[in-house]
Amino acid sequence: MDPQRIDALLGFLALADRLKTVERRGLVPLPDGTLRRENSAEHCWTIAVVALLLHREVAAETDLARVLSMLAVHDLVEVEAGDTYAYDPAGRATQVERELAAADIVFARLPPDLGPRLRALWEEFEAGETPEARFAMACDRTQGFLQNVLSGGRAWRDHGVALADTRPRMAPAEAVDPAFAALIGALYDRARQGGMFGEAPPA
Amino acid sequence: MDPQRIDALLGFLALADRLKTVERRGLVPLPDGTLRRENSAEHCWTIAVVALLLHREVAAETDLARVLSMLAVHDLVEVEAGDTYAYDPAGRATQVERELAAADIVFARLPPDLGPRLRALWEEFEAGETPEARFAMACDRTQGFLQNVLSGGRAWRDHGVALADTRPRMAPAEAVDPAFAALIGALYDRARQGGMFGEAPPA
Repeated sequence: MDPQRIDALLGFLALADRLKTVERRGLVPLPDGTLRRENSAEHCWTIAVVALLLHREVAAETDLARVLSMLAVHDLVEVEAGDTYAYDPAGRATQVERELAAADIVFARLPPDLGPRLRALWEEFEAGETPEARFAMACDRTQGFLQNVLSGGRAWRDHGVALADTRPRMAPAEAVDPAFAALIGALYDRARQGGMFGEAPPA
Repeated sequence: MDPQRIDALLGFLALADRLKTVERRGLVPLPDGTLRRENSAEHCWTIAVVALLLHREVAAETDLARVLSMLAVHDLVEVEAGDTYAYDPAGRATQVERELAAADIVFARLPPDLGPRLRALWEEFEAGETPEARFAMACDRTQGFLQNVLSGGRAWRDHGVALADTRPRMAPAEAVDPAFAALIGALYDRARQGGMFGEAPPA
C-alpha cells in the first residue's frame, strides 16, 4: 500500500471513530440501574447481531455479506450530520438533505475504489428496495424499539412518544417478514404491559 | 416463530446488550478534548469497518459474511468474562478458562439451531486457523492499536506499555498480509514520532 492510501484509510477510520460520540435517544441500562444514551457505533454493532439471529429465519434469501456491510456503514454519515431522532419532525424534514451533504464529505475521504463502494451500500440501505436493504431496515428498527423496551421505555416517555406514534416506523419493519412481525409484536406486548409508552402532547 | 423462540432471542439480545458496558483499556477521543474508555460493542463495530476497508486489499480470499459474522460475535463472551487487557499477564493466564465458562452461559441462551452456530464462529476466531479467522484477528489487533494512536497513546503510558511490549501482539497481525504490515507500520511510525508509548516498569 502506498503512503497516500494508508493516510486515506487511517484518516477515514479517525473520522469514523466519531460515530462513538454520536448519541441516540435510545438508552442503555447500566449495571448500577441507571441509564445512559446509546451511541450510534454501539447501535451499529447490535443490529449486526440482530441480523445474525434472523438471517435464516426470514423467507427472503439475502446476501449476508451485503447485509452486514450495509449495517456497518449505514450510519456513517452521522459523524457529520448527527443522529436524527425518529420522532423529531423538524429534524426529519431536513434529514435527507443533511445526510446527502454529509455523505459527500465522509465517503470522499476514502480512496476512489472504496469511497463509491461504501457509498453505494449506504445508498442501497437508504433506498430500501433490495431484499438486503429491507432486511437491514427491519433489523435497524427492531433494535431501536428493543432498546426502548430494555430501558423501560424511558426515552419514549421523556419525549412524549405514544404507541400510535411508533406505528408508522414499525409497520414497514413488520411487513418485511412474519419473523419480524412476531418479534416486534412481542416487544409491543412487553411495552404495553410495562406501561412504557409516553403520551403524545396535546395537539 | 413460537413464543419460546421469541423469548430466547429477546433474552439473548438483552444479554448481548451488556457488551456496551464492558470497558476496554483503549480510549475514545471526545469532542471536548477529553478521553473516555472504549466499550467492547463500539470496538466490535469499528473492526467491521476495518474489515470492509481491507477485505479486497489482502491476497487471501476470504468469505466476507463469515468474517463479519465472526467479528460481530467474537467478544460476546465478555458480557460474562469481562474484557481482558492484552498487557495484563495475570488476566491473560486465566482468560481461556474464564471465556470458555462464559461461552457455555452465553451461547446456551440461544435456540439450539443458533447457539452452536454462533459458538462455532467464536471458536473459529479463537482458534485463528482459517483465512477468515486470521483476517479477523488482524482487523481486531489493528483497531486496538489504532485506538491507542487516536487517543495519543494515553492508555499505553498509563499502563506502562512500551513499544517492545506491543510486538508479540502486533507481529502476528502484520504477518497476515503486507497490507496489515503497511498499515500497522504506519501506526508504529506515528506512535513513535508522537512519543506515545509508555515505559515498561523496572523488572
